[in-house]
Amino acid sequence: MKSRKKSKSKVGLAPGTSVYIGPERTTPCRITVFDYNKESCEERELATAEEAFPYRDTPTVTWLNVDGVHDVELVEKLGGHFHIHPLVLEDIVHTAQRPKVEDFDDYAYLVVRMLSRDDAGRLVTEQVSLLLGARWVLSFQEQPGDVFDPIRTRLRAGKGRLRGAGSDYLLYSLLDAVVDNYFVVFELYGEQIEEIEQRLAVAPTRELLSDIHALKRELTAVRRSVWPLREAVNALLRAESALVSPTTVTYLRDVYDHTVQVIETVEAYRETVSGLLDLYLSSISNRMNEVMKVLTIIATIFIPLTFIAGIYGMNFAFMPELNWRWGYFIVLGAMVVVVLGMLHYFRRRRWL
Amino acid sequence: MKSRKKSKSKVGLAPGTSVYIGPERTTPCRITVFDYNKESCEERELATAEEAFPYRDTPTVTWLNVDGVHDVELVEKLGGHFHIHPLVLEDIVHTAQRPKVEDFDDYAYLVVRMLSRDDAGRLVTEQVSLLLGARWVLSFQEQPGDVFDPIRTRLRAGKGRLRGAGSDYLLYSLLDAVVDNYFVVFELYGEQIEEIEQRLAVAPTRELLSDIHALKRELTAVRRSVWPLREAVNALLRAESALVSPTTVTYLRDVYDHTVQVIETVEAYRETVSGLLDLYLSSISNRMNEVMKVLTIIATIFIPLTFIAGIYGMNFAFMPELNWRWGYFIVLGAMVVVVLGMLHYFRRRRWL
Amino acid sequence: MKSRKKSKSKVGLAPGTSVYIGPERTTPCRITVFDYNKESCEERELATAEEAFPYRDTPTVTWLNVDGVHDVELVEKLGGHFHIHPLVLEDIVHTAQRPKVEDFDDYAYLVVRMLSRDDAGRLVTEQVSLLLGARWVLSFQEQPGDVFDPIRTRLRAGKGRLRGAGSDYLLYSLLDAVVDNYFVVFELYGEQIEEIEQRLAVAPTRELLSDIHALKRELTAVRRSVWPLREAVNALLRAESALVSPTTVTYLRDVYDHTVQVIETVEAYRETVSGLLDLYLSSISNRMNEVMKVLTIIATIFIPLTFIAGIYGMNFAFMPELNWRWGYFIVLGAMVVVVLGMLHYFRRRRWL
Amino acid sequence: MKSRKKSKSKVGLAPGTSVYIGPERTTPCRITVFDYNKESCEERELATAEEAFPYRDTPTVTWLNVDGVHDVELVEKLGGHFHIHPLVLEDIVHTAQRPKVEDFDDYAYLVVRMLSRDDAGRLVTEQVSLLLGARWVLSFQEQPGDVFDPIRTRLRAGKGRLRGAGSDYLLYSLLDAVVDNYFVVFELYGEQIEEIEQRLAVAPTRELLSDIHALKRELTAVRRSVWPLREAVNALLRAESALVSPTTVTYLRDVYDHTVQVIETVEAYRETVSGLLDLYLSSISNRMNEVMKVLTIIATIFIPLTFIAGIYGMNFAFMPELNWRWGYFIVLGAMVVVVLGMLHYFRRRRWL
Amino acid sequence: MKSRKKSKSKVGLAPGTSVYIGPERTTPCRITVFDYNKESCEERELATAEEAFPYRDTPTVTWLNVDGVHDVELVEKLGGHFHIHPLVLEDIVHTAQRPKVEDFDDYAYLVVRMLSRDDAGRLVTEQVSLLLGARWVLSFQEQPGDVFDPIRTRLRAGKGRLRGAGSDYLLYSLLDAVVDNYFVVFELYGEQIEEIEQRLAVAPTRELLSDIHALKRELTAVRRSVWPLREAVNALLRAESALVSPTTVTYLRDVYDHTVQVIETVEAYRETVSGLLDLYLSSISNRMNEVMKVLTIIATIFIPLTFIAGIYGMNFAFMPELNWRWGYFIVLGAMVVVVLGMLHYFRRRRWL
Repeated sequence: MKSRKKSKSKVGLAPGTSVYIGPERTTPCRITVFDYNKESCEERELATAEEAFPYRDTPTVTWLNVDGVHDVELVEKLGGHFHIHPLVLEDIVHTAQRPKVEDFDDYAYLVVRMLSRDDAGRLVTEQVSLLLGARWVLSFQEQPGDVFDPIRTRLRAGKGRLRGAGSDYLLYSLLDAVVDNYFVVFELYGEQIEEIEQRLAVAPTRELLSDIHALKRELTAVRRSVWPLREAVNALLRAESALVSPTTVTYLRDVYDHTVQVIETVEAYRETVSGLLDLYLSSISNRMNEVMKVLTIIATIFIPLTFIAGIYGMNFAFMPELNWRWGYFIVLGAMVVVVLGMLHYFRRRRWL
Repeated sequence: MKSRKKSKSKVGLAPGTSVYIGPERTTPCRITVFDYNKESCEERELATAEEAFPYRDTPTVTWLNVDGVHDVELVEKLGGHFHIHPLVLEDIVHTAQRPKVEDFDDYAYLVVRMLSRDDAGRLVTEQVSLLLGARWVLSFQEQPGDVFDPIRTRLRAGKGRLRGAGSDYLLYSLLDAVVDNYFVVFELYGEQIEEIEQRLAVAPTRELLSDIHALKRELTAVRRSVWPLREAVNALLRAESALVSPTTVTYLRDVYDHTVQVIETVEAYRETVSGLLDLYLSSISNRMNEVMKVLTIIATIFIPLTFIAGIYGMNFAFMPELNWRWGYFIVLGAMVVVVLGMLHYFRRRRWL
Repeated sequence: MKSRKKSKSKVGLAPGTSVYIGPERTTPCRITVFDYNKESCEERELATAEEAFPYRDTPTVTWLNVDGVHDVELVEKLGGHFHIHPLVLEDIVHTAQRPKVEDFDDYAYLVVRMLSRDDAGRLVTEQVSLLLGARWVLSFQEQPGDVFDPIRTRLRAGKGRLRGAGSDYLLYSLLDAVVDNYFVVFELYGEQIEEIEQRLAVAPTRELLSDIHALKRELTAVRRSVWPLREAVNALLRAESALVSPTTVTYLRDVYDHTVQVIETVEAYRETVSGLLDLYLSSISNRMNEVMKVLTIIATIFIPLTFIAGIYGMNFAFMPELNWRWGYFIVLGAMVVVVLGMLHYFRRRRWL
Repeated sequence: MKSRKKSKSKVGLAPGTSVYIGPERTTPCRITVFDYNKESCEERELATAEEAFPYRDTPTVTWLNVDGVHDVELVEKLGGHFHIHPLVLEDIVHTAQRPKVEDFDDYAYLVVRMLSRDDAGRLVTEQVSLLLGARWVLSFQEQPGDVFDPIRTRLRAGKGRLRGAGSDYLLYSLLDAVVDNYFVVFELYGEQIEEIEQRLAVAPTRELLSDIHALKRELTAVRRSVWPLREAVNALLRAESALVSPTTVTYLRDVYDHTVQVIETVEAYRETVSGLLDLYLSSISNRMNEVMKVLTIIATIFIPLTFIAGIYGMNFAFMPELNWRWGYFIVLGAMVVVVLGMLHYFRRRRWL
Repeated sequence: MKSRKKSKSKVGLAPGTSVYIGPERTTPCRITVFDYNKESCEERELATAEEAFPYRDTPTVTWLNVDGVHDVELVEKLGGHFHIHPLVLEDIVHTAQRPKVEDFDDYAYLVVRMLSRDDAGRLVTEQVSLLLGARWVLSFQEQPGDVFDPIRTRLRAGKGRLRGAGSDYLLYSLLDAVVDNYFVVFELYGEQIEEIEQRLAVAPTRELLSDIHALKRELTAVRRSVWPLREAVNALLRAESALVSPTTVTYLRDVYDHTVQVIETVEAYRETVSGLLDLYLSSISNRMNEVMKVLTIIATIFIPLTFIAGIYGMNFAFMPELNWRWGYFIVLGAMVVVVLGMLHYFRRRRWL
């Protein structure tokens, strides 16, 4: 929904015109660079886009990460130096893209969506753009996050394959980190579902229904983020791009398996939530049933009794029972018999 | 539905006979021409179809826009001069086509549907026919509209790629303008959905149900316009037509991404509206539940009390309690005890 | 359902044995012939199958139309002379085929279903078999109809492409007439749906539910006729048969577009009818709600009042209020206060 | 479900071990042979598998039919002599296979399912295995049946193509007989559906619901038998096996069309049954509605009247109306007025 | 759900880092080896991974089975010696994989899921990893189980094809054992469904609803295990790997047929469970209906009677009937008439 308000302002603009579309942000964009090979690893924070230019042609692998894409000028400068197509730059700053892969011979463009939760616990999806060149990777995040921190740690430590491998392996690592992060977000859904189940066991309130619907809507949003991701990773696998080595393809196949698992988890949650809705509805009708039963039991017991009492409240001049010595007590006894008969009937019908 | 009434009159006509099918219109058709290259741009309004003939063979790019297709003769004259197939001309004036692309070697025919709202806020879909030649683009709209105005502005200004590029890029720009316009129309759906949600929170009325169903029907209509559009743009992408340059294919891929976004938005709205229907129905049954509970509480409290009163309204000659000094007050006290017991029971059952 | 009863009699027969399956008919079969080229057009009604034999080998285009396929002998004679496969003849007289295309090198066999309405307004589907040879077209209808009349008129008039084109164009014209006729039948569905909507606004009766279900069933039947038709026309398009010239393929593509429109219309009607069912059900529950509310309002107002009256109907010897001067009127006043309180409560709950 | 109980006993057996899985049968297996060509036709009943061995290599076409597959040894002997793969033999006696076609170069294996009804009218599905060799066909049925009798009659009579054609045409004839038999079984479903519709019009009982669900389950079982059959026949068509001549392919295409018709009929029945379920449910809620209306009408009429009577049953010392001469009759008149008002209100609300 | 808790700990780890993910286990891992050819069969239990190393290069077929994959070091040592890719080792110990096949030229990796039930009768799915080399098969189970015991027995006995065939046939046998075991687990579902049906016939309780939903969730979990299995076996069939001989492909085709049967069984169960849900809901509403009917009958009979009694309980000074000799008995008689009329009405409406 977020992007709806802004889209009007973009109608009629020349294509390739980069306009930032997304929530307003004021924090300055931050550029960090990792330039490494098996032997060494340089880590720096850059003040301007121009400082990043020399890294394009170093023989080492370079990872340029930009936190914040609202500084359109910065993105355009950087993109221009790396010969990125204007439409790609437009997509980077227009943060409502679906996950996709686009292959431009000398570089490839990936969009993935990162999931997180804001302070109120609501789902936030953030666009992460990844650009893979022969010896560099550019990554653009909407805001600073800690998802890529373990990769930074591995780069600094220099252990494992990462430092010795090429830019394609770095891309894979970033992708893997994003996909693994999905599972972390999913834990919360599991907890929310359990909580709703417990509340449902207590009483089906209207708020509960809203919560179930909200959860369902969030899962639909997550689904929209992950289904195209699977297609995108698959496209990358089948592209046989010169940028991705056969060794890395094996690793990407692993990421592909994970995206399939992500999708299955989302679908399983969705199905569970649908089940909760059914449970809610039958809970409602169960309670209604109970209410009706109580009403019926009370009414069917007392209506006949009241009728009997009404009979002997009539003022006929000649009503022989009224003058019987034990008339009153006989009637009370008859009433007790009626009540017991009713209770027996209810028990046989399993209403009690 | 609009086209239903007219279709009978067309049965049995020879194919290729152009008959205007659509709402009746009386405004005269209007032809405007843009003839441009990088250096210059001529803009004219034409009085007759014949005035447009010379533009076919100019070395510059020509954009002929016709507002109104009810003047069948005009369309046929124009089409004849540009060597357009009679069946295509028939489709142009028969304004109930699905979006599609047809490739006729020396020109391509595109149908897209433009969405707008009439004065009563109802959705109106309008057929836009686009014909792409090597150095010209013909566009046919059902009625004058302002969706293409930004392109006119860009042509006059001469900034950006548009003036320097070929007719295929113009076609892309027109297509892009139509697709971008969808998002504008969609904003209204977002607002309508929010409004319905608020009304639903107040009370589920019958009018609300009609409104939800009307909204659902409109979204279904929109969906029928956008699904085939995706296929059509995709067909254009894969056609490898000589009319579309590789550079423009990259831009069309961008339009394709947008149509996918359009579809996802429509599907998301449809799902939300289905959710509203569910909410409506459970709102109804919730209210019913409430009503039943009130009835049950009132009835289960007063029916036993009335019975007790009935007992002491009996006219038996011998009823010892009636003569007790405090009989009346004891009975009143007993009644209070019954009420308190009932209330306690209801509270425990969470009915209060 | 129609064909169900008869199918038993066919089990175990040798394949290729033509047995008429369909409603019983007594009218004699009628053969008409059009033999034409650009210059001339001969129109005759034939008395026997043998009279049709010479037309097979004329250099002109021949259209043989047979109204009624219950005369199995006639169909077999005719088919034998035109070298039609026995299985095809079996299909022609067994009038429960799905729309399909079968290509037999020197001729092609098409089955389409024609829709019409009987006198009681019920949907009737009729099988039309079309056989396309190099210079002839055979058409078989179950009963005489006026769908092909405009084509006859065009043949007689000799205007347009028809007289100058080959047998494939004639086939296309026949197909086009059948498909166009669908839209005529559909108008009635539009009207029926509107009528049901109006009746639904008045009251949801049981008859209405039956009518909605009947309509749904009819639409399902129509759907079964049109979905395979699309496949069939598509198969004809892709067959690259020598019988169909490239020019005619363009026209068939147009028929294909129409069948897609037909399908979309049917699906839209089906969705609308499903919506009507939902509306019916929520209408029912709305009325139930109303009934419950009236009951609850009446009961919750009068039950407490009756209780109060019951109190003062008790016969206790000592009930001080009974002897107060204004006791009666105070109680009546108290009752009015209770009623007003109730009404206020109901209004606040929006039940009134 | 039938096969569920037995499957445990098969876990862990060496593959290719033929174990009979199916309902217990005690009747001895029966082998009949037809050995024929255009001129002659020999028909025999065999006592042992060994008697069938010579028929493998006769130049004439041989049809060996085995009724009953519970004699595993017999099947293995026969299969061994005809060089049938052990896994195929396992499938023949394990009578829970899905319809399928397997092509083993020098023979093809077909599984189809035959539908019939037991004495209690319940659906019984039976596995029929067909083996097609160059000059022989082996058929295995679970129990003797009369579905193949018309083919036997045709073989004896020697009319039609059958006697002159090869083993592939015989296979086609058997397949055709099985598929045609489906329609016979379907007639019963049509009748059952009509019967349920009539019972539904009378009253929606719980038994009716069980019957609808049972019918639905049966149709689902039928569906599981026919869907894979279509795939199987299609596979046979596309296999371009040397065993099937092009002439016979035309006939198989006809069988394919029939299986599609079978599937459509099943789907139509399923849809009708779903509609019956909806009708049942709305019937239930309609009746509930009626019940509620009666209750409401009675209650809303009498509760106010009882209140009025209660008023004048109070024992206040000073109640002026009680002493009026016409008080009693005025109150009775007021009650009549209340009743008439109520009835008018109900009529206006269309509750009566 | 099981794997959800652990997944967080894995985010950011270098890929190819094997971390055991699954329920905590303390039993030591157990390695058993079968080394066999047609002539001999050696069976041993190994204490360390190193003892298994020599078996890699024996000319005989070797089956190494590891029970328990929580000993990551053991898996890595074994995998390292057999040149297994680190990502595969990671998958083996990360026991939440979907069934899949991965082909690595000199070996193939299969994941299947084994179903069983824990002591509480709940479904437990266990990951079984199978590695197929030219002359060895490695199998990894999460915990010791008896599913492979029949294969061990067959190996020891040396009967059938198994001892004489290659490692691919062993793989097939293991796969077949796993798939056959599904049917054993399914028997329990059949019993559970029958039990629920019986409980449903007694009374629709809330616990029953939970049980139905639990069953549905389990079947969904089973489904997630078996659908990808079919794809995996199919991939193995189509792979044309040098590791699998054409003879074994025929056997694998048999396994494929079984997985299709497994899927159909699961889908049939799912459909039945959905039917149970419908039955539950209509059971609920049926009972509600019954309750309402009882209430309505009681109320509509007694409310008018009570009104009549109320009439003659009024204290008007002048009420002629009160002084009639038989007034009281006439009123009692009138009441009986009302009751009989009511009962007749209810009977006609089929409420009794």
